[in-house]
Amino acid sequence: MQKNTGYDIVIHNGTVLTVSADFDVLNRGLVCIADGRLKRVEERAAHQPLPAARHVIDARGGIIMPGLVNTHTHAAMSLFRGLADDLPLMTWLNEYVFKAEGRWLNPESVHAGALLSCAEMLLSGTTTFCDGYFFEDAVAAAVQASGMRAILAQGIVDFPAPGVHDPKKNVAEAVRFIEEWNGKTPLITPGLFCHSPYTCSEETLKAARRVADETGTLFQIHVAETQSEVRQIEQRHGTSPVQYLERIGVLNASTLVVHAIWVNEPDMACMARRRVGVSVTTESEMKLASGVAPIPEFLRKGLAVGIGTDGCASNNNLDLFQEMDTTAKLHKVKTLDPTVLDARQVLTLATRGGAEAIGLGKQIGSLEVDKKADLIIIDTHKPHLTPLYDPVSHLVYAVTGGDVRDVIIDGRLIVKDRALLTFNPETTIGYVAHLARKIASQTSPID
Amino acid sequence: MQKNTGYDIVIHNGTVLTVSADFDVLNRGLVCIADGRLKRVEERAAHQPLPAARHVIDARGGIIMPGLVNTHTHAAMSLFRGLADDLPLMTWLNEYVFKAEGRWLNPESVHAGALLSCAEMLLSGTTTFCDGYFFEDAVAAAVQASGMRAILAQGIVDFPAPGVHDPKKNVAEAVRFIEEWNGKTPLITPGLFCHSPYTCSEETLKAARRVADETGTLFQIHVAETQSEVRQIEQRHGTSPVQYLERIGVLNASTLVVHAIWVNEPDMACMARRRVGVSVTTESEMKLASGVAPIPEFLRKGLAVGIGTDGCASNNNLDLFQEMDTTAKLHKVKTLDPTVLDARQVLTLATRGGAEAIGLGKQIGSLEVDKKADLIIIDTHKPHLTPLYDPVSHLVYAVTGGDVRDVIIDGRLIVKDRALLTFNPETTIGYVAHLARKIASQTSPID
Repeated sequence: MQKNTGYDIVIHNGTVLTVSADFDVLNRGLVCIADGRLKRVEERAAHQPLPAARHVIDARGGIIMPGLVNTHTHAAMSLFRGLADDLPLMTWLNEYVFKAEGRWLNPESVHAGALLSCAEMLLSGTTTFCDGYFFEDAVAAAVQASGMRAILAQGIVDFPAPGVHDPKKNVAEAVRFIEEWNGKTPLITPGLFCHSPYTCSEETLKAARRVADETGTLFQIHVAETQSEVRQIEQRHGTSPVQYLERIGVLNASTLVVHAIWVNEPDMACMARRRVGVSVTTESEMKLASGVAPIPEFLRKGLAVGIGTDGCASNNNLDLFQEMDTTAKLHKVKTLDPTVLDARQVLTLATRGGAEAIGLGKQIGSLEVDKKADLIIIDTHKPHLTPLYDPVSHLVYAVTGGDVRDVIIDGRLIVKDRALLTFNPETTIGYVAHLARKIASQTSPID
Repeated sequence: MQKNTGYDIVIHNGTVLTVSADFDVLNRGLVCIADGRLKRVEERAAHQPLPAARHVIDARGGIIMPGLVNTHTHAAMSLFRGLADDLPLMTWLNEYVFKAEGRWLNPESVHAGALLSCAEMLLSGTTTFCDGYFFEDAVAAAVQASGMRAILAQGIVDFPAPGVHDPKKNVAEAVRFIEEWNGKTPLITPGLFCHSPYTCSEETLKAARRVADETGTLFQIHVAETQSEVRQIEQRHGTSPVQYLERIGVLNASTLVVHAIWVNEPDMACMARRRVGVSVTTESEMKLASGVAPIPEFLRKGLAVGIGTDGCASNNNLDLFQEMDTTAKLHKVKTLDPTVLDARQVLTLATRGGAEAIGLGKQIGSLEVDKKADLIIIDTHKPHLTPLYDPVSHLVYAVTGGDVRDVIIDGRLIVKDRALLTFNPETTIGYVAHLARKIASQTSPID
């Protein structure tokens, strides 16, 4: 017999950052959750008793905010974190990453790598991520076990890939993945992921676009990541990567353009006209020396922009708080203008902006009544977060993922006092450490 | 009655990064400490028993490395962390920082701010820092209480400053500070800090240089931080800031040139000839949009280069691990070359390079026998540090200050399992939080 106990979860005694369009900050915040959704997000009046709830969480003066949205990663690449750094892009890719992927990826290793990344993302405040990789069913199984929300896609390239040896079957395999996971579990949304305009043919891109339209899924693609890609596409197709994709009908409002570093004014105008979402992965783009995407320009043009970490083999972590910090600072020094990309704008990129970019803007990304209850609590009672003049400034410039105390996704408590409640990462840590010893002993550029 | 128990501290079961000139990495590392110094730094043979010690520390498979050296900060500015961000430099300085400093700095508040920063630095792996500020006696008292190593200097500017209302007495006050702290306590080395070539007259700079030479202290100065500074010095003195300082005899091997962003080829040649040390504060320089200092050029010219955080009002934290990460990545994307500033070079900047830049290279900065025992232990058993192919890569690209487990300074255990042993930061956190509420209610650009 279950008595009526009101809300599922009530959170109090913290500052609520809604990151809504008017960016409400509620100093004595009160958040009430039931049936996986936010029922009340408001300032608690003095002497107002706490509403009845099965579970009451005291934020102990910390910050209550939307869970972070990682708009681009390859979760299982945690297997290769730090395998090779500081190398020219093509050496890194061809001599290390592709070799290691070809040799070591299988459903078991991808599951372990993805689960490890889920642990890292959860413990650093990410509640939703957008992924594209191989053996994506194993990623989906890991995500399901972790309790995270994700858009997942089986990667499409026109050469033999791990798990898809015959490139002619790449789109069919992606379709199979969508059919498998569509509606299977509420937190996983299947999507499409074409690697890039230089690794997928026009035929492949058009076929994938048709599938995305027919199934109503997000179409992700790396675009204009390096100068050499732009030159290559210009030579092959006589125009820029963005214009080429526009010409063959790939770009629309359910497209996520990833990187978008080397784009010109007509490219951006086209992206704005087609209302594509954009994902920028600042730290990885810096580490690989790809370039700096024009985020302020994207925002001025009204594009939905999110940030991501990319795979952690090129980052080398999945901490979106550090990503916010670096993104804000990089654009200031690039323009020599300290007012560019202020803390509010950057916090929006990592939450509401990211949610909009990946097509989940109506469900997540801000703390507003009726949205899904995806939120995190930051412990600010620490030397490096003292004093606290402005919570937004702290979140962008001082907090790291290690300051996240609690994580709630879809109304379910997933991390409590920095402990994962959905799975124990120890087994995964042990498995990946063991696998890495084998990889290290057998992967070298001399192979 | 005390029996002979061998070493004071023995550390085992971790990978030792010596950061010596040949960068030895010892996989089954053993470090023995006595009388505040490193007595043995070696690989432990299989079945070799542990040497006798009063205190044995199990690094549990983590990384044992030199403590980090923060070559430039203003520790007490933690009082103003996040008070104002994303503003033009002159608005930030004149409307917020200078006003707040003028109103709220006193020996008590500076002591609290410095102690808060010591807590933050210790908990993020910094064992030595180089500071210049006002009421520096209060900073020295805080450092002494914390157990940190530091070079501290009373700031010199040619206008009325907190605690030094008559600028005519600025050098005399700095001399008094040196005399007060010279030899007083082993971990504090007094120094000189002239704010800049545009806020100090030629007479002041020369007088300070004489004092530094006579007392054998480090002469720190902000140089070539912004383009407007360079223009101003060129108008006033007909040459660049570096050449101006050279002309008036300020530059020598016991000079620390801070920032050095807008320097040209002759400036760098002069810096190399005079063998000055250089301190670059990447994150603060990005946030204030000052520019990017040519670190790779400095290294090619053989200069001793360290990194620093600057005051955390413009950073907004004191975490040198994040500073390493951002420094490495910024230079890659600036040059579009991912091989620039590799992880070893950047780790060296934060340890041995920094120690050399501030004149402590013979005592600290690497784990070598007879050097002072300043070291830290990193806990790598975490999702975001799994797997571990290369500890150097992890330290630069994946670790943050929150992964520091233990800190030893001068052979004394200061942080154990992330708890400070020398002081309880709770009182300071409470004091600073209370002070900040007063500052926030009374500081605004409208005042």
